[in-house]
Amino acid sequence: MKVRGYAALGPGNALEPFEYDVGLLGANAVEIQIEHCGMCHTDLHLVNNDFGFSQYPLVPGHEIIGTVSQVGSAVKSFKEGQRVGVGWNSGCCGECEYCAQGEENLCLKWEGTCTHGFGGYASVIRVNSRFVFAIPDGMDSAKTAPLLCGGITVYGAFHAYGVTHATHVGVVGVGGLGHLALQYARAFGCEVTAFSSSPDKEAEARRFGAHHFVNSQDPSAMGRLNNSLDFILSTACADLNWAAYMGVLKPKGRLCFVGVPPSDIRVPAAPLILGQKSVCGNPVGSPSLIREMLEFSARNRVEAQVERMPMDRVNEALDRLRANKARYRIVLEN
Amino acid sequence: MKVRGYAALGPGNALEPFEYDVGLLGANAVEIQIEHCGMCHTDLHLVNNDFGFSQYPLVPGHEIIGTVSQVGSAVKSFKEGQRVGVGWNSGCCGECEYCAQGEENLCLKWEGTCTHGFGGYASVIRVNSRFVFAIPDGMDSAKTAPLLCGGITVYGAFHAYGVTHATHVGVVGVGGLGHLALQYARAFGCEVTAFSSSPDKEAEARRFGAHHFVNSQDPSAMGRLNNSLDFILSTACADLNWAAYMGVLKPKGRLCFVGVPPSDIRVPAAPLILGQKSVCGNPVGSPSLIREMLEFSARNRVEAQVERMPMDRVNEALDRLRANKARYRIVLEN
Repeated sequence: MKVRGYAALGPGNALEPFEYDVGLLGANAVEIQIEHCGMCHTDLHLVNNDFGFSQYPLVPGHEIIGTVSQVGSAVKSFKEGQRVGVGWNSGCCGECEYCAQGEENLCLKWEGTCTHGFGGYASVIRVNSRFVFAIPDGMDSAKTAPLLCGGITVYGAFHAYGVTHATHVGVVGVGGLGHLALQYARAFGCEVTAFSSSPDKEAEARRFGAHHFVNSQDPSAMGRLNNSLDFILSTACADLNWAAYMGVLKPKGRLCFVGVPPSDIRVPAAPLILGQKSVCGNPVGSPSLIREMLEFSARNRVEAQVERMPMDRVNEALDRLRANKARYRIVLEN
Repeated sequence: MKVRGYAALGPGNALEPFEYDVGLLGANAVEIQIEHCGMCHTDLHLVNNDFGFSQYPLVPGHEIIGTVSQVGSAVKSFKEGQRVGVGWNSGCCGECEYCAQGEENLCLKWEGTCTHGFGGYASVIRVNSRFVFAIPDGMDSAKTAPLLCGGITVYGAFHAYGVTHATHVGVVGVGGLGHLALQYARAFGCEVTAFSSSPDKEAEARRFGAHHFVNSQDPSAMGRLNNSLDFILSTACADLNWAAYMGVLKPKGRLCFVGVPPSDIRVPAAPLILGQKSVCGNPVGSPSLIREMLEFSARNRVEAQVERMPMDRVNEALDRLRANKARYRIVLEN
């Protein structure tokens, strides 16, 4: 079967129309006619080979929603015509302690939707049913697609480190991940503080759920918050003053990275030791957590604020993402 | 009442005999005739004012064991003649959420035995009974004194981050803290790996409980351990290759600092994010945890390997500590 996609043929290249054959349908595969695909910052990193493991031709895209068009002989949970989603992960070893514990996202032999196959900037994709998710009725497809990676990345971080209704949460960066993190933290019942170097984002940050907004460029505003937050989620892809954020944490507080800063992370030892503080991170979430996240999002109306663009304008969309102009997630539509 | 101690009168000075008056006995105070005081690396840092908050004259010492000679009118748990110990902490606010939860070591208004008063390199000390601990019968005083800070620092780290019998533990540095950490981890039933840049410490590391010994200067030995340990405790006061240790951690693993490296800690973002790994730290332990640690140590015969020196040879002892020659803890005796 022929698929029409958009591929980078080399590092940093513009995407080009690209046709490929997906062959026979595996017994555990679900074939999906792609309707929407969110544009994650990681897609840009992959096109550029920023992580050093990209393979070309590369068809990006891992925030996919579409309709099942065929299922393999062993698939019992999905049927033709059903609306489903696919996120970052598309495979795992199935045998290690992480897979056995339902933490497939931590499997050392993980496979990615657009790193170990052709991704979602395309007409069709086939994915192992373990990594396919039913989309709850009533959710808007375009606004839900970004939850499959962006949403689970922040939801998964809150889950991994025990964020509850009583946690005082900070979110660094009001962007694709940040605007979802603010919504989740508010929906959990947390006290929510947004940190941004763009003071013009205050009104929107508050609309997404922030009780407080802090201009992170203002050292005195940062200093006033010392020892006040339990959990700070950094969604920024920039090198920031991490020592200042360590100061903002209360004893036992955690600074958690989901955005990838270009340089190593540098923190002083004193707050780690004297304050029992941690620096940590999180990679998306397990299939079972993605199901929980979708159910929670449907019940609490958490959705991405999106800009819809037709799939054939993918390069224009990538330029917009590169220029940090997306508010807050571009979703490609077939 | 006059006390004879040894004080640094300025940063980096040799200690000098120093007499001071301790005044009236407070209602909650326990007066202790000091018999033993362990020499912690932090005492050196304080003499040198490495942390920037030392006040002079400074009488170091916070691993104290002695005999109760007097108790204040409100003290019910201790009586004259009883053998007791005192560690790093000597005070807290008693009102904050950490004090209320029995985590007085995290109180932001913590007070230290030798930072907010004259410490244990002396004949007598008076300490609030909340920070005085009964020493179980059968424990050797000299070998137990170092548990009051060194022991609880590593035991507290294991406790804070949920180290159990099933944890694969690494200990970086075989010194004052490291030789105790190896013993505790082994006594918990863990698999224990010692990391040291001194290959000649292998036999002793194994005697303290290590199942495995790794020369941390050997990159290929380090590389072979990638993704193998759950918890690595760094007891070293040096700038090491933290990225290599992050690689040795399994997914969800933690690198925990109790030794203070001179520079900021630098780690790459990838293992934090992709592997859900953490960098963390720990400050000693709460009074209730110190009681638990002492009981555990008595039952499992965990004790420091010590070099005994008379209190009046304190400067010689400090030189030995400074030259990294102590095997593994010097204990001053009155």
